[in-house]
Amino acid sequence: MGTLLYAEDFPVGRTFEFDSYSVTAEEIKSFASEWDPMPFHTDERAAAKSAFGGLVASGAHTLAICIRLASDAVVSRMAVIAGRGMSEARFLQPVRPGMTLTGTMTITDQQLDGPAKGEIELRNELYDQDGQLVMSMVGEIILRRREPEREETAPTGGEI
Amino acid sequence: MGTLLYAEDFPVGRTFEFDSYSVTAEEIKSFASEWDPMPFHTDERAAAKSAFGGLVASGAHTLAICIRLASDAVVSRMAVIAGRGMSEARFLQPVRPGMTLTGTMTITDQQLDGPAKGEIELRNELYDQDGQLVMSMVGEIILRRREPEREETAPTGGEI
Repeated sequence: MGTLLYAEDFPVGRTFEFDSYSVTAEEIKSFASEWDPMPFHTDERAAAKSAFGGLVASGAHTLAICIRLASDAVVSRMAVIAGRGMSEARFLQPVRPGMTLTGTMTITDQQLDGPAKGEIELRNELYDQDGQLVMSMVGEIILRRREPEREETAPTGGEI
Repeated sequence: MGTLLYAEDFPVGRTFEFDSYSVTAEEIKSFASEWDPMPFHTDERAAAKSAFGGLVASGAHTLAICIRLASDAVVSRMAVIAGRGMSEARFLQPVRPGMTLTGTMTITDQQLDGPAKGEIELRNELYDQDGQLVMSMVGEIILRRREPEREETAPTGGEI
């Protein structure tokens, strides 16, 4: 899986490219039938008559795809202590069967306050095959530091 | 399935209560292994050593649960033309095995501009069994009107 990445490895502005992900009608329907059973997510014929004009993915599905792509690109190699979770997710364009999604993660904040851990904020963006922004989300992750700072040893010297 | 609900049925402030949903370790691990394979989502032992102190659900999973509860409570009975999707989702507390989630949908905007359709904005909130807010999201849905207004007939009168 390659080397682990630590808090120091994520300066503000560093960007990671995602692989691509092909969205299928089967997966849209299968995800939605479990979690978001609206006709325009689960039924081609009903979807064709909807304002979308065809099947579209549930927003929860689009978010899941984004997180999976981010995981494969870099998150799975992070020396993660904890995800703080997401502060927001925005869904800007419908995701349809046959679309090929890709995206980027960009580091938007890096705090190396602690001696052994740091915290980063990141922005994930998902694009369709024409480069149109489909969704975005912000996440925060707490990571180990590569070389934890030694605790300052208490001064031992006496006077003089 | 009961009667359909139309745009007129969603005045600002109307609230719908969700059923409850019991979160299991199996489901957390199964969802995360497909979409968000972080150790604190997929592996009890690794999770116990993480800052969470135990398994927590992926945010995408929590969102999916929220959408499913909203669907069962009311969205599946709406005369939906299209979901406009979500404008934001916020994840405020970790979701753990054994938690029982419930929530509410509150209508935050209602536009009945068109003769045949209207648009509503809603806020879904998910709570744990102690009433603590776990996540929130905002959604927008376009609905049919119950009684479409007749097109104004063109005035036919001439001069007197």
